[in-house]
Amino acid sequence: MENRLYYGGDYNPDQWMDQPQILAEDIRLMKQAHVNLVSLGIFSWAKLEPEEGWYDFDWMEEVIDRLYSNGISVNLATPSGARPHWLADKYPEVLRVDELRRRQLFGTRHNHCFTSPVYREKVRQMNAALAERFDHHPGVVMWHISNEYGGECHCPLCQQAFRGWLQEKYGSLEELNRAWNTAFWSHTYQSFDQIESPSPIGESSIQGLTLDWRRFVSHQTTDFCRAEIRALRDAGAKKPVTTNLMYYYHDINYHELAQELDVASWDNYPIWHKQAKSETALDSGMMHDIIRSLKKAPFLLMESCPGPTNWQSVSKLKRPGMLEAASLQAIAHGSDSVLYFQIRQSPGGFEKFHGALISHYGGDDDRTYQECVEVGDDLKQLAQVSGARTEAPVAVIYDWENLWAMEGSMGPRNQGMYYKEAVLKSYKAFRRQGLNVDMIDMTQPLDSYRVVAAPMLYMFRDGFEDRAKAFVKNGGTLILTYWSGVVDENDRCVLGGTPGGLMDVMGLRSTEIDALYDWEKNTLIPADPSAGDRCYECSVLCQLVKTTTAKTLFTYGKEFYAGTPALTVNSFGEGKAYYVCADAEQDFYTDLYRKIVLEAGVALPFEEQLPEGIEVNCRHNENGTFMFIQNFGKQRFSIPSLPGWEAVFGSMEDELSPLGTAVLRMS
Amino acid sequence: MENRLYYGGDYNPDQWMDQPQILAEDIRLMKQAHVNLVSLGIFSWAKLEPEEGWYDFDWMEEVIDRLYSNGISVNLATPSGARPHWLADKYPEVLRVDELRRRQLFGTRHNHCFTSPVYREKVRQMNAALAERFDHHPGVVMWHISNEYGGECHCPLCQQAFRGWLQEKYGSLEELNRAWNTAFWSHTYQSFDQIESPSPIGESSIQGLTLDWRRFVSHQTTDFCRAEIRALRDAGAKKPVTTNLMYYYHDINYHELAQELDVASWDNYPIWHKQAKSETALDSGMMHDIIRSLKKAPFLLMESCPGPTNWQSVSKLKRPGMLEAASLQAIAHGSDSVLYFQIRQSPGGFEKFHGALISHYGGDDDRTYQECVEVGDDLKQLAQVSGARTEAPVAVIYDWENLWAMEGSMGPRNQGMYYKEAVLKSYKAFRRQGLNVDMIDMTQPLDSYRVVAAPMLYMFRDGFEDRAKAFVKNGGTLILTYWSGVVDENDRCVLGGTPGGLMDVMGLRSTEIDALYDWEKNTLIPADPSAGDRCYECSVLCQLVKTTTAKTLFTYGKEFYAGTPALTVNSFGEGKAYYVCADAEQDFYTDLYRKIVLEAGVALPFEEQLPEGIEVNCRHNENGTFMFIQNFGKQRFSIPSLPGWEAVFGSMEDELSPLGTAVLRMS
Amino acid sequence: MENRLYYGGDYNPDQWMDQPQILAEDIRLMKQAHVNLVSLGIFSWAKLEPEEGWYDFDWMEEVIDRLYSNGISVNLATPSGARPHWLADKYPEVLRVDELRRRQLFGTRHNHCFTSPVYREKVRQMNAALAERFDHHPGVVMWHISNEYGGECHCPLCQQAFRGWLQEKYGSLEELNRAWNTAFWSHTYQSFDQIESPSPIGESSIQGLTLDWRRFVSHQTTDFCRAEIRALRDAGAKKPVTTNLMYYYHDINYHELAQELDVASWDNYPIWHKQAKSETALDSGMMHDIIRSLKKAPFLLMESCPGPTNWQSVSKLKRPGMLEAASLQAIAHGSDSVLYFQIRQSPGGFEKFHGALISHYGGDDDRTYQECVEVGDDLKQLAQVSGARTEAPVAVIYDWENLWAMEGSMGPRNQGMYYKEAVLKSYKAFRRQGLNVDMIDMTQPLDSYRVVAAPMLYMFRDGFEDRAKAFVKNGGTLILTYWSGVVDENDRCVLGGTPGGLMDVMGLRSTEIDALYDWEKNTLIPADPSAGDRCYECSVLCQLVKTTTAKTLFTYGKEFYAGTPALTVNSFGEGKAYYVCADAEQDFYTDLYRKIVLEAGVALPFEEQLPEGIEVNCRHNENGTFMFIQNFGKQRFSIPSLPGWEAVFGSMEDELSPLGTAVLRMS
Repeated sequence: MENRLYYGGDYNPDQWMDQPQILAEDIRLMKQAHVNLVSLGIFSWAKLEPEEGWYDFDWMEEVIDRLYSNGISVNLATPSGARPHWLADKYPEVLRVDELRRRQLFGTRHNHCFTSPVYREKVRQMNAALAERFDHHPGVVMWHISNEYGGECHCPLCQQAFRGWLQEKYGSLEELNRAWNTAFWSHTYQSFDQIESPSPIGESSIQGLTLDWRRFVSHQTTDFCRAEIRALRDAGAKKPVTTNLMYYYHDINYHELAQELDVASWDNYPIWHKQAKSETALDSGMMHDIIRSLKKAPFLLMESCPGPTNWQSVSKLKRPGMLEAASLQAIAHGSDSVLYFQIRQSPGGFEKFHGALISHYGGDDDRTYQECVEVGDDLKQLAQVSGARTEAPVAVIYDWENLWAMEGSMGPRNQGMYYKEAVLKSYKAFRRQGLNVDMIDMTQPLDSYRVVAAPMLYMFRDGFEDRAKAFVKNGGTLILTYWSGVVDENDRCVLGGTPGGLMDVMGLRSTEIDALYDWEKNTLIPADPSAGDRCYECSVLCQLVKTTTAKTLFTYGKEFYAGTPALTVNSFGEGKAYYVCADAEQDFYTDLYRKIVLEAGVALPFEEQLPEGIEVNCRHNENGTFMFIQNFGKQRFSIPSLPGWEAVFGSMEDELSPLGTAVLRMS
Repeated sequence: MENRLYYGGDYNPDQWMDQPQILAEDIRLMKQAHVNLVSLGIFSWAKLEPEEGWYDFDWMEEVIDRLYSNGISVNLATPSGARPHWLADKYPEVLRVDELRRRQLFGTRHNHCFTSPVYREKVRQMNAALAERFDHHPGVVMWHISNEYGGECHCPLCQQAFRGWLQEKYGSLEELNRAWNTAFWSHTYQSFDQIESPSPIGESSIQGLTLDWRRFVSHQTTDFCRAEIRALRDAGAKKPVTTNLMYYYHDINYHELAQELDVASWDNYPIWHKQAKSETALDSGMMHDIIRSLKKAPFLLMESCPGPTNWQSVSKLKRPGMLEAASLQAIAHGSDSVLYFQIRQSPGGFEKFHGALISHYGGDDDRTYQECVEVGDDLKQLAQVSGARTEAPVAVIYDWENLWAMEGSMGPRNQGMYYKEAVLKSYKAFRRQGLNVDMIDMTQPLDSYRVVAAPMLYMFRDGFEDRAKAFVKNGGTLILTYWSGVVDENDRCVLGGTPGGLMDVMGLRSTEIDALYDWEKNTLIPADPSAGDRCYECSVLCQLVKTTTAKTLFTYGKEFYAGTPALTVNSFGEGKAYYVCADAEQDFYTDLYRKIVLEAGVALPFEEQLPEGIEVNCRHNENGTFMFIQNFGKQRFSIPSLPGWEAVFGSMEDELSPLGTAVLRMS
Repeated sequence: MENRLYYGGDYNPDQWMDQPQILAEDIRLMKQAHVNLVSLGIFSWAKLEPEEGWYDFDWMEEVIDRLYSNGISVNLATPSGARPHWLADKYPEVLRVDELRRRQLFGTRHNHCFTSPVYREKVRQMNAALAERFDHHPGVVMWHISNEYGGECHCPLCQQAFRGWLQEKYGSLEELNRAWNTAFWSHTYQSFDQIESPSPIGESSIQGLTLDWRRFVSHQTTDFCRAEIRALRDAGAKKPVTTNLMYYYHDINYHELAQELDVASWDNYPIWHKQAKSETALDSGMMHDIIRSLKKAPFLLMESCPGPTNWQSVSKLKRPGMLEAASLQAIAHGSDSVLYFQIRQSPGGFEKFHGALISHYGGDDDRTYQECVEVGDDLKQLAQVSGARTEAPVAVIYDWENLWAMEGSMGPRNQGMYYKEAVLKSYKAFRRQGLNVDMIDMTQPLDSYRVVAAPMLYMFRDGFEDRAKAFVKNGGTLILTYWSGVVDENDRCVLGGTPGGLMDVMGLRSTEIDALYDWEKNTLIPADPSAGDRCYECSVLCQLVKTTTAKTLFTYGKEFYAGTPALTVNSFGEGKAYYVCADAEQDFYTDLYRKIVLEAGVALPFEEQLPEGIEVNCRHNENGTFMFIQNFGKQRFSIPSLPGWEAVFGSMEDELSPLGTAVLRMS
């Protein structure tokens, strides 16, 4: 990859083909804003293949040529995200069937069956034709596979594929019946053909089925993506492929999907100006780190919005400086691009009021356009950062299948277990120390980390408990919390005590778990008053434990379990294992993790803990190591003296204003 | 029309045909209450045509005769609002199909397809037979067409009619694709046959389609009504026709439907005693004025409730005096009737606990009946007002198609744009000056007004911008607000700046619009501190503008746009154009509109602004001009000295108590 | 019945047949906990009949034998609550059709048509086979018919059965049309075949239809239960039958269903630790008394949960002592058992985290198991209570059909009439006096009571007004409230004044009813200030009345009806009739009922009114009379001196701690 950061966004000139002056003005305004990449053709199928088998690619070639001759590269899309009307008319099987078993009518997006052989074949033909025509074009630098994969289909073809997937997974019906405990409520399957995907008008009580259905949906989507890529490759395409992922998207295990991609990318639409900016930045930051950790490599910010979006309940204007700070946050976390949806606002339809580089007004004298020009300028200044990688001494586990299993179960709190929130607390506790953090799932190796936090790992799967045990034994520090190790990978409860397989490592057994109403709190009291710790609050869930070898550091302050352990630590082999029993407040995590990382000898960039809202990220490449310091807080921030570092963006001496960014380099 | 106001209501003797003593008692109690008109036969189809083709009208003739001989006229209904069971059994096509494409079972009301040729034919036959038999009856004074038209049908017949309507509107598929911008998301239609009405299981993303579907539903309902009336006329009916409209009914453009009617009428069920009575009265009053403005002539209050309704979440008893005040409010705003649903409470079914002139108890010694007698007496006293017209020097635009377009779009605030509330603020601001107000839509002529307020006119259609420009040029004062002139009549965004077509008239261009959360406020600060204005609050939406020739009167007090214009005025030709940038509090509008009407030389009935809750309306006919003064406030009100006026109801000298009414006349 | 209380619960060894060590451990842990009864086979159909017609009962016999040889009896279930997959596959008619007319897919529970001849036949065959094989087994002591009957089916077979039921009820279509007042909205039926069950996509406006549909559902469920029992009896079964009822279950009139049973039983899952324990105990207690009153005999607590449930929004741990107090409350109210769902936690599926005697952990050293051992011990101590009956001098009417009728109507408050809450207030007012209370429906004889409270008896049916009149005439005290006697048994409004048929008994006529918003209150003022009564608050509904012979005791304090009657009493024959006009606060009821029971000469167990949270219940058998005193309050309670009583559980001398229980005996 050459030394440049990508800047640009989704470009839909097909809406304006009859207005050449608009197309010309697009080029002028893009160049003025330093745009160097657009995503093209995402929703162009109806124009690329107006009748079955008749491909009209000339207009697209003209667009690519014109862009290329103006220094703008293309990320060329396969158009499977929205199919033309004739395709659904002629082959109704391509339309999805919902969980109520209703075949959908043509409409909106994301309305194609991922299993349909017809749809797969039509997509294959299209992708092959696009690859043959455009892959060699010097302006095409990448393939944008489909668009924001998502949703599910319950059609007969999908049911059949699901049954096949189950057969392969379980081998026999006996094993499936055992794994799902179908004896409960007399649900024993007597044939694979009896299995139907979960439905509000059918089966909704077999939690193993629900979990496997989620896995199948993720699997089938990935398989569809794989088929799309294969179609390109089989037709000779050499350019790298990506697909645009989404904010904490629930239904696809992105670790699975990412294996098909050359580059990870995602669409980021934070809701700024609703809560404190520091909280929004943290939440976006964790998702940036999830995406970066998928390939453990630089990624692309594929979509973001230069102005207000049009789909929020309340779409506020971005305050001056917000766009720049948010854009540079992506770079700080490992992105090699800032791309927008969209280059030009569409004149009608669903997203006509979604912000864009070029507004309906169309002039270059409005605020949003001018701020975009500044961001383009920033990225030119930071070109040397491109390709820089991120290394993290600590990791937090966020696991899709664990999420699905916990949601699919009915347990101590059906009105909210707050898994993501618990993960975010651990993430924040590390980030306040200025550390890069990897966001991994349960299947990843742990050896490279000094400290690993695994909040609410309800399900242990794929040998996690063995890896965790070895990790601690060899000197790592593991942090586990309440509601961990409760079930196996098929959501069957562990018998004989939890956390299953790690009771010795943790030096304790969980006995009961108390759920709190929203208005209830408990307190955490230091076991050793002389240690100088303070008390904290906790809420939501309180696990009760019996320690064996573990040492109690905090106890509960209230309820019938007052005085029993609330935080423990156990020495195991060369390492240590902490167990957080309750959903503690953020400060508890932040203070605890500071002690743990210091104890574990992790090097911190700054001596002091970072103030609320200050973000620090490091990337490094052949040009050196780059430290991004950003201020999402409310106060100005004085960067401490950092010998050996020089500012390559912003200043080290001046105080960093709210929304300000400084980038330092050490060669 | 003779010199009398109508008094009475819906009468359903078909529920009591086996109890002659009840029918006799009905007549006694009606006469005692001064009833002179009933609506008859609204839900009588099953009794009028018990088997297909067998009409049984004799019982109805008896009823009409008996009423007539007791001095009670009849408003005779066509019974299409609820059809007999055999009709749906034999011709299932008459049953509606909902947006999920489910054919409804027989049941409730409003369950007939407006397109079905069979239904239209059966209705035609029935209406013709009724006209032939009863139109000449001296007791029949009017036709009540169907009942509360509403709802929609998505059956194949309606789909076909919709496609035909689109073909006629757009001429070609190319033009339709352009208007709806179907290129977005690859939705290009290749044939009219591909078009389906919007559906949650189909298309919901083409906003032009959604808008046109609403227009079609309104059109088709109107067409059905037209066919009903034609059936009467073709059979020789001469009496005037009306249909009962509903409170701010969303789905029919009443300006379109009203063109078919001789007289406008509506059903008014205000929820008194929930909020301040002044607010409820204002809300009802605006709807009275909308209905009056449809034909710019006296209308009828077709239904209202003498006691509590049975469908509110909480149905409070009407406090003593409430019924009289609410009834006379209708007369004040231009109604020539006070009619109730219903004369006698039905003994069973959906509305058995809905208030009525005659209750289940049935005696004449209960409070509600006695208050009804008083209202009947009032109307006799005010008979000279009948036929009196209303003239308004100012108008407010409330436009159904604009409402639909705004709702169909996703924009700055999807959790509430508050269009109606914005209209109500302008209406109230005029009403506090004691002025009659016309409530018009965008297609009406503006020339007769001195001041026109057009709040939130998101869509400009049918040449509104030209009429508005001419209006100002010729000396009118136009008030426009935020979120105006954004799209054309097909919901396509205006390019090049907004408000589209009126930037010169307003002397400014809108640049951005900020949406506020419910808990956020901004302030409006007088630009010239010496002018003596105070500061105000605003919320919901803040439009940012760049002025050209406009003068800034107020600026924002907070946020990054503090100091930029929040209220502007521009001189254009002989007139003036005001632009209200933000959703200001009521006082801002009230104070501003007072200045504007004084500046525009509008004659006010009283020198002072009216206190909260005092309503003033004027009507005039050959008997003179009548000024209604009503007190919906909490304080007593002293009527100022008004030379030349005499009291024809109530007193000019006494203070007007809460819920009191005085009517003055100037000959 | 021998002298023992049953202890145990649902036992599902079919989930563990491949793990004999688990089955052996089950026996050990049950015996250690004093278990003497389990419910077996509730969801075993798939295992009992794995293929159509092939019965495999041997495994069950082994289980029963093993239990019996260890002193544990069996309550053997008919397995109709969940059918095997093959049955639904082969005979789709057994699957329910929902109100939207969608045939359900196989899944969850409660998904069988109650009408289907096929389903009834398959159940008959299964029940007969079970009876033949197991009824004579000495370990089998009772039959557990199906499980928690509930739900409804709208399939064509049910429609046909419904029409037949209507034909039988009404005799003619004319009578049905009259009863339902179908003339309203032109809904007259011309044939029974036109009648369809209520549906959101069909008829929802005929309230008589809705009410009769509910009755039919209750009838058909009862008929199904009857058929199940007949199958057992026809095959020679002699053991008593029961079916487990549910907490205030809405859709079945349990008075109807209970007629089929030998013993009533129910499943009790109170949500402890959310509100004050005294309130939860009161609510459970009233349901215990409803169940006891069904057969006016001892009942069984069939299911309860030793730990937290898994289906609440928040499942809290039971605090120490809670399980014992709740278990003994059942005995106090007339239960001869404490049974749990479940003996052993299932390892997977819908209820895997539902509490159980034996947890996933499986040891005997956890808190829940140990508390269960204590409860088992308690029941052994209290064995002499078994079979003891309960006598009540007062009754409160809670009537399912009245509930349905009120819900099906649209009236003064559609956002909440609070029927159950009103019943609970009367119940609590009696219970605070330490009285046993029968909870009866409108059809029961009243003669055995001194005082009967009939709150919100909107509908009078089955001659209630005659029984009530005779009851008062003969010296009884009747308490009626607002919104009483409004409709007849088909929900047709009473004409000529309400409460229908009881105006003379009450000495008044109701005239109007005012509904209050949630934030509104009125006050009740003593009519005679010298009587020493205080003022109270009321809310929700205020009935206005005109007295004839009644004496006014309280009047309203506010609104236009201030000063009119709010509480009246009328002497009629030898008795008295009180009328409570408004939804008064609890204290009003408690104070009033104390006066009434004293006035009526009812003997009270204690001189003083009981403090909040103290429950007193008496049962008697050949071993004597047993007084249960339980403390669900927050304070300790000193039991007053009670000559002639001796403590057989707990102590009379010590103060009773919160959650404490004392049982006294008088021989």
